[in-house]
Amino acid sequence: MSEFDLIRRHFTRATPNTLLGVGDDAALLQVSEGNVLAVSSDMLVCGTHFFADADPYLLGHKTLAVNLSDMAAMGANPRWATLALSLPTQDEVWLEAFSAGFFSLAQQHGVELIGGDTTRGPLNLCVTILGEVPQKLALRRDGAQVGDEVWVSGTLGDAALGLAHLQGKIDLPEDTRIHCLSALHQPAPRVALGLALRDVATSAIDISDGLLSDLGHILERSQVGAEIDFSMLPVAEVLRKNLTHPTPPLSGREHPTPPLTRGGWEGLEVSFIQHCLLSGGDDYELCFTAPAIHHAEILGIGEQLNLPLTRIGKIIAGQGCVVQDATGNPLNIESTGYDHFR
Amino acid sequence: MSEFDLIRRHFTRATPNTLLGVGDDAALLQVSEGNVLAVSSDMLVCGTHFFADADPYLLGHKTLAVNLSDMAAMGANPRWATLALSLPTQDEVWLEAFSAGFFSLAQQHGVELIGGDTTRGPLNLCVTILGEVPQKLALRRDGAQVGDEVWVSGTLGDAALGLAHLQGKIDLPEDTRIHCLSALHQPAPRVALGLALRDVATSAIDISDGLLSDLGHILERSQVGAEIDFSMLPVAEVLRKNLTHPTPPLSGREHPTPPLTRGGWEGLEVSFIQHCLLSGGDDYELCFTAPAIHHAEILGIGEQLNLPLTRIGKIIAGQGCVVQDATGNPLNIESTGYDHFR
Repeated sequence: MSEFDLIRRHFTRATPNTLLGVGDDAALLQVSEGNVLAVSSDMLVCGTHFFADADPYLLGHKTLAVNLSDMAAMGANPRWATLALSLPTQDEVWLEAFSAGFFSLAQQHGVELIGGDTTRGPLNLCVTILGEVPQKLALRRDGAQVGDEVWVSGTLGDAALGLAHLQGKIDLPEDTRIHCLSALHQPAPRVALGLALRDVATSAIDISDGLLSDLGHILERSQVGAEIDFSMLPVAEVLRKNLTHPTPPLSGREHPTPPLTRGGWEGLEVSFIQHCLLSGGDDYELCFTAPAIHHAEILGIGEQLNLPLTRIGKIIAGQGCVVQDATGNPLNIESTGYDHFR
Repeated sequence: MSEFDLIRRHFTRATPNTLLGVGDDAALLQVSEGNVLAVSSDMLVCGTHFFADADPYLLGHKTLAVNLSDMAAMGANPRWATLALSLPTQDEVWLEAFSAGFFSLAQQHGVELIGGDTTRGPLNLCVTILGEVPQKLALRRDGAQVGDEVWVSGTLGDAALGLAHLQGKIDLPEDTRIHCLSALHQPAPRVALGLALRDVATSAIDISDGLLSDLGHILERSQVGAEIDFSMLPVAEVLRKNLTHPTPPLSGREHPTPPLTRGGWEGLEVSFIQHCLLSGGDDYELCFTAPAIHHAEILGIGEQLNLPLTRIGKIIAGQGCVVQDATGNPLNIESTGYDHFR
């Protein structure tokens, strides 16, 4: 099968919302009135972002998901994507599964694949995503204000624990493992949340490199600091119940958190758990800031989306992020976020 | 140096024509009124598209050039680009030269780098280019009409000869070698030509995989055939003068061509020369069709741009492409264009 047949068979679907889709020198598209275009590119490399034997369906999902997550973090409505692939061989079974995973998520979000490139080489996947947002409602990184509350969606550290399990560093019990590997392989991009936050959040970012690293970008761009309460960090129920010293159940979405500082989970060091929660990558949850006046409204958005939203701290004057334990004392944090070149 | 410092140092330049550039989850841009957005992605892989020891400045140029060429072939005005790089190591000297080559060409064309990704892995470069064109003036592949003339810009086969020289298949004399390697490493994207052709051409494509392959896409999408006159194919003067049996000089841009069918260049087989002209990739010239009534106007555009434009044949009813020699007999063509998976 030729390169052109490959594209036709696996990567050409109807694009009713595009003026001209796959098959010309460029795609043509029309940005809706009142919107500007949001554009982001993410590259996934075999051996760096995923293992060579990664399930191709899940990889197709994740390749698009990490890009959708950027649209979510911008408050943008994802519309179109291009996909450039470098493939070592032409494996029909792999391509079939990969494209099925990619298009399944694309369809859920109304995203049309409008072009790309196919070439021979080490396995490498590069997506450029294009979305729409009214200019003034975009959730930029530079809008956080002193006094704003700091929020995160979902739970933290699950993907990092899943990765540690795959790397043989830890051995998770079955229910925890299933949960964490699902978080790692099939992140759910928080697109609906990004859209819902357009009118309330002052800044947002998606957590891809770890909470401290990504929140750090908001702080740097907004020229502010933050105080984070470690005991407030949202932890998945399936992890919480594996605590060596079980803690009382969640009293509500506003206070979802076990005092992890007092003890580790079965067999896990406290410092490792800290690392996963604060610096674990690949969560693809949103971290955002909003004025305290919107607190109840934000909890309501979480209810509506069936997605826990947790206030984890506040924006303060100054710079950098202080993480405190339940008693208000600063934690000694060793690790920062993932950096490809550190 | 961290990933973020790397981006700041090498890939962050002013973007006055972008609402929000490098440094957020996505860039924000505004498409000019009356235009639609043209989008295309191209990936360059080490070992497939270039050698590992390729000059990084030239590679930076070419990485953007092949993408600009897609805008040219669409009649679009290139405006913005994203760049995703996978790098095996963080080599400051390499990055400095690569980004200099990239931005030098970007500046020439008023293109702003608005985002991208940097990651560790085998050397791989993926650019997505974004341009503008009024919807009705876009040079699509599906507009060729029976009776149209078929044109190409510049000269053909130079890059393929340069590549063959680098691969040790042939040994070019010095002046020819300099010319052919320049064509291979520093293709000049025909953006100004694409813009000038908006009102006259019925279809266009850039020649990246070889004339027959790329013209084939126009024919397929337009559901027409073509007759190409081999003796009309434009050959660089520096090559022509190395003919074993020199031919009369060009009588004008309209008839620029030596009868290559009668003999090879010094030491080169006729079939190899045929291959370079008809199927050599990497030329990044434009192949386009236009009604014969625009013939003089097109020659005038070539004069104005100081770029030879040559009529090489015509569109006929039917399908596929027939290449004829100077006496009107069909040539026996063995090779087709480059295909990564054939």
